[in-house]
Amino acid sequence: MADQHAGTDIGALPPVPSALRWAEPPEGPVVILLDQTRLPAEEVELVCTDVPALVRAVQTLAVRGAPLLGLAGAYGVALAAARRYDVEEAAVQLAEARPTAVNLGYGVRRALAAHRAAAARGATPEEAAEAALVEARRLHREDAEASTAMAARGLALLDELLPGGSHRILTHCNTGALVSGGEGTAFAVALAAHRAGRLRRLWVDETRPLLQGARLTAYEAARNGLAYTLLTDNAAGSLFAAGEVDAVLVGADRIAADGSVANKVGTYPLAVLARYHHVPFVVVAPVSTIDTGTPDGASIEIEQRPGSEVTRFTVPVPAGAAARGTGGGTPVAPLGTQAYNPAFDVTPPELVTALVTEAGVASPATPGGIAELCARSCRVTMS
Amino acid sequence: MADQHAGTDIGALPPVPSALRWAEPPEGPVVILLDQTRLPAEEVELVCTDVPALVRAVQTLAVRGAPLLGLAGAYGVALAAARRYDVEEAAVQLAEARPTAVNLGYGVRRALAAHRAAAARGATPEEAAEAALVEARRLHREDAEASTAMAARGLALLDELLPGGSHRILTHCNTGALVSGGEGTAFAVALAAHRAGRLRRLWVDETRPLLQGARLTAYEAARNGLAYTLLTDNAAGSLFAAGEVDAVLVGADRIAADGSVANKVGTYPLAVLARYHHVPFVVVAPVSTIDTGTPDGASIEIEQRPGSEVTRFTVPVPAGAAARGTGGGTPVAPLGTQAYNPAFDVTPPELVTALVTEAGVASPATPGGIAELCARSCRVTMS
Repeated sequence: MADQHAGTDIGALPPVPSALRWAEPPEGPVVILLDQTRLPAEEVELVCTDVPALVRAVQTLAVRGAPLLGLAGAYGVALAAARRYDVEEAAVQLAEARPTAVNLGYGVRRALAAHRAAAARGATPEEAAEAALVEARRLHREDAEASTAMAARGLALLDELLPGGSHRILTHCNTGALVSGGEGTAFAVALAAHRAGRLRRLWVDETRPLLQGARLTAYEAARNGLAYTLLTDNAAGSLFAAGEVDAVLVGADRIAADGSVANKVGTYPLAVLARYHHVPFVVVAPVSTIDTGTPDGASIEIEQRPGSEVTRFTVPVPAGAAARGTGGGTPVAPLGTQAYNPAFDVTPPELVTALVTEAGVASPATPGGIAELCARSCRVTMS
Repeated sequence: MADQHAGTDIGALPPVPSALRWAEPPEGPVVILLDQTRLPAEEVELVCTDVPALVRAVQTLAVRGAPLLGLAGAYGVALAAARRYDVEEAAVQLAEARPTAVNLGYGVRRALAAHRAAAARGATPEEAAEAALVEARRLHREDAEASTAMAARGLALLDELLPGGSHRILTHCNTGALVSGGEGTAFAVALAAHRAGRLRRLWVDETRPLLQGARLTAYEAARNGLAYTLLTDNAAGSLFAAGEVDAVLVGADRIAADGSVANKVGTYPLAVLARYHHVPFVVVAPVSTIDTGTPDGASIEIEQRPGSEVTRFTVPVPAGAAARGTGGGTPVAPLGTQAYNPAFDVTPPELVTALVTEAGVASPATPGGIAELCARSCRVTMS
């Protein structure tokens, strides 16, 4: 069946623009985001001159994805410091912008600690701000390096699990360059397989309600020339039943100490389908996603998002087009309909075949294996 | 969690209009459909004066749902006969309008057989046309009676399976009065539970890509005053994991002799989730949905629909509004993206807790049990 869907031939396309960057225009430093709510229709940059603008961007999902949220947090602290806002208050606002992604708070803490340490050393405000920025840039570089390492480890794991060398991979949500300082997490593994000539097909879940798969993963797949096919989330069952899925690769927003994985809603049903069909289910995430302070899946706070994301349909359209200004999308359900709209779900460790991080692979994802990854990462960082 | 979502209070609403009816205006008989592509935004009637119009309505899903397609087929034959078109040719066109729903061909054959029998008896064209119409009306009446019987049997089964008497039911796609000459199949059971005061919550899958759950089931649930909550298809996993689903109720488009159930894509993943969580998975369908000529699930032809249903988003909007005329919806994926878009999936009998028909319940849905239901229905029909 996969062969019925030929590779998408849309000619050579430019690379995916930078999802987040720091800039120093004459009027002061800014954080510039690629507005992900406008993709794939338009590539629009969002210039954040202060922390409230960055918090809004996080909450509206203009910037999203666990590792990238960490960078947004760190650069946000650096921005507050550089512009002489209250850094401690900015850190709290940033860390609380969204509850589930652990990386957001991690990035905030890294830059804040650097700022505090500099201040404690008697640094000037300029020097303390510079220390926060240096730390944000270090996190950015680490993130890119982690992507590279995860891609290599993930591809090696795929080759080990699937000796055929022609992988049909199903993925959910968006986990590429748009969520990372590098090439991403799960998507980076698929991209590595593609570059090695071993990706037969990337099956892309559209990922309702916000369609990150249709809008963002398909965009990254097309830009990188992958053979990909889009599907509604509920059509994945048919692919499994037809034997068309060799492995599932997903990212993670938070991993508890017991190996429970919080990720985009719809991940858990894929894990159950994968188990039922004896297909490997692989989570790819940097060690910073592991939250040893969260003991288990039940302890993970799941963000409940507005029901209007389900009852109304909002798609990215060019600014000024007719569909804008209709008051938050087109209704698809009767007036007064309430919706259940968790942003994430939790996959228990027993359904996870392997957890791939930059520091190594835990397979199965046991508490001991996860603790070992954390310890190893700590050594790597400190060396 | 269910209790966090209060019942939808939108006042007393008019009943759901008739999904399909025969009318005899001065200019000749017509089949009048409620255009389901326009719901819930507008209640628009589609007047079909010939079979090609009816075939188009079937293909564009203006009329849909297994039992109702049977009625469309039967009334379509009656329409061709009454208007002196070629009845045999019309029957072929109607039966081939969509491949998966067995009821369509069943309805066509019933009316065609009546027409042929009358002609063979030497009836005039008027009398033969009347015979076809009488048969279509008989099928309509049988369908309404079957709905009533399925609702009663289904509710009795729920009460047996779930002694608590406060049912939280998850359903997929649309299976109510909009798909039937009566109150439907799976939805009719939920409605019966509601009337008996034993429906705590109806969880409504939105049912991508065409959103029959959001648009049609939510509409029927609101019109009937049910406590319902909408969700994206991939959020069902979170409900199962939270213990919020007591039973899954779905309809069927075709049931093979071995008990395999073809139904709206997304049904099979629910069956796998239900099994994983030890939740009953119940299929509600009239005996006419059972196709003893199809031996097993692998023999069921699955309709593949255009990828543009996934890559572009089309929602029902009032005629003349801006979003019309944009050339088939708003793109949500990059240009050139291909999509895998099966209309149905197949659930194997081992995942079906029970099959509820008007003639009785098969639990489990074994080949023997299904053959017995068919035999019993045959006796019922002939008595």
